[in-house]
Amino acid sequence: MKRYVRFQWKDEVSYGLWEEEGVQPLRGEDPLSFEPQGERIPHHEVRLLPPCCPTKVVALGLNYRDHAEETGHPLPEVPLLFMKPSTAVIGPMERIVLPPSSSRVDYEAELAVVIGKTAKDVPEDRAGDYIWGYCCLNDVTARDLQARDGQWTRSKSFDTFCPIGPWIVPELDPSDLTIEGILNGEVRQRSSTRELIFKVPQLIAFISEIMTLLPGDVIATGTPSGIGPLSRGDRFQVRIEGIGVLENEVA
Amino acid sequence: MKRYVRFQWKDEVSYGLWEEEGVQPLRGEDPLSFEPQGERIPHHEVRLLPPCCPTKVVALGLNYRDHAEETGHPLPEVPLLFMKPSTAVIGPMERIVLPPSSSRVDYEAELAVVIGKTAKDVPEDRAGDYIWGYCCLNDVTARDLQARDGQWTRSKSFDTFCPIGPWIVPELDPSDLTIEGILNGEVRQRSSTRELIFKVPQLIAFISEIMTLLPGDVIATGTPSGIGPLSRGDRFQVRIEGIGVLENEVA
Repeated sequence: MKRYVRFQWKDEVSYGLWEEEGVQPLRGEDPLSFEPQGERIPHHEVRLLPPCCPTKVVALGLNYRDHAEETGHPLPEVPLLFMKPSTAVIGPMERIVLPPSSSRVDYEAELAVVIGKTAKDVPEDRAGDYIWGYCCLNDVTARDLQARDGQWTRSKSFDTFCPIGPWIVPELDPSDLTIEGILNGEVRQRSSTRELIFKVPQLIAFISEIMTLLPGDVIATGTPSGIGPLSRGDRFQVRIEGIGVLENEVA
Repeated sequence: MKRYVRFQWKDEVSYGLWEEEGVQPLRGEDPLSFEPQGERIPHHEVRLLPPCCPTKVVALGLNYRDHAEETGHPLPEVPLLFMKPSTAVIGPMERIVLPPSSSRVDYEAELAVVIGKTAKDVPEDRAGDYIWGYCCLNDVTARDLQARDGQWTRSKSFDTFCPIGPWIVPELDPSDLTIEGILNGEVRQRSSTRELIFKVPQLIAFISEIMTLLPGDVIATGTPSGIGPLSRGDRFQVRIEGIGVLENEVA
C-alpha cells in the first residue's frame, strides 16, 4: 500500500512516500509524475504536513442518511455543496483553534478524495482516472454560527477548521470502508462509506460539471451521525479503514 | 491614478501598470514590492487577464439595503458570507458560459476589494494597510439553483461565474462611489457604495477574524438592487466611479 505524504525535513518541504524503512522523498509537484529522489529519511526526523495543497475544499452536506436525520434536515435530492478555504487546512497533529466568536465547535469525521489531475465534465465511469487517492478529514464546524447564518461558509471556514491527513492512499476502493470519529479515545461516530447517499464517482461527475477541479483539490464526502462538541485539550481522531488515523488536539 | 493590470504579451504573463503611453511591465509577484521592468508595450499588443490571482473570493450576501429588500430577505445582523472558487475567475472581455443545469443565470455588479498582504485579525482602523486596491466584479449567479439548494455555493461557483477587472486601483476612497450594472448598454443597477450595510473596513475586520486573507484574495462587497437574467449574446458591464468598466459577453 502506497502512502503519499508531504513533510518538512530540516528547512525543506517536499512530497514523499511513507515506507516502513523511512520516508522516501519525491521530486516534483505533480502527483502523476513524482520521481524518487535521494535517500530515505527516518520517520522521527520528519514533520508531516497536510498531504496536499488544495486550491479549494469542496464539501458535502448531509451525505450520510443517519446524519441528515440527526440534524432534522430532509435528505438532499442532489449533492449539497459548500466550500472550505485553503487557509483552513492543517496537517496531522496540528492544533485546532476554537474561535472566540463561537460557543459550540463540532468535529465531523469524513472521507476525503484528493484530485490527481485537472478535472472538468468528468463522466462517472471515468472518475477514477482523476483521483490521486484518499485521506481522512475533519470538517470542523462552529455549530451555533452555522444555525445563525443559514449559509454555512463562516462556520466552516475558520483557520485550522480543516485537518487533513495523515497521508494519501491511492488505489483504494472507497465503496465500503469503516469510518470512525474518536473523541479522547472513545468512538463517537461509526459508519461505513457504503452509507453515503451520493458516492465518490457521482460526486466527481457532479462537481466537475460545475467547477474545474485542480490537482490537490479535496472533496470532503460528508459525515455520519454522532457529531458533537470539542473542548480545549480534546484529542480527536478520524480513523478510516485502509487509510489510518488523522489526529489533532484542540488548543 | 495607478491602474494595476495582469496581462499576456506574446507568451509571457506578468503584472503591469496601465498608463496612457502603454503598459509598463512590473517584475515580481508581491504587489507591495513590484518593480518596473523593461519598456512600455502598446495597449493593443496585450491581452488583459484577471488583475490578480485570488486563492479565494469571499463574497457578501444582501449587503445593500435595496437588494436585500428585493429578494425578500431580512437585513443581515452580521455580514453574510459565501465563497466563490478561484476556478470561477475570468478577466475582462472573457466570456461567461451559461451552464445547461440552470435556466436562470443573473448578473450582479459589485465593488471588489483586493488584498495586498497577509491579513489575520485586522482591526477596522488598520484595514487600509492590507488593501492593494479595488476593481469591478460580476457575481454571476444561477438564481434557480440558489433557491433550490438553500446553500449558495453551487449557484455561484460555475467556471466563468466571477469576472473581475479591468484593473486594480489603489488609494481610492470606497465610501461613496457610484456603481452601475449595464446590460446591453442599458443601466439596470445603479447605486452608491455609501448604501453598503457593512463597509469595507468592517468587512476586512470581520472576515480576517475568521480566515487568513492572502495577497490577491478578493472580497466581493455585495450587489445593489436591479439584478436580472443574462442570455446568450448579452454584453454586461460593471461600471464603478474611479475605477472604470469591466465588460464581458455571454457565450
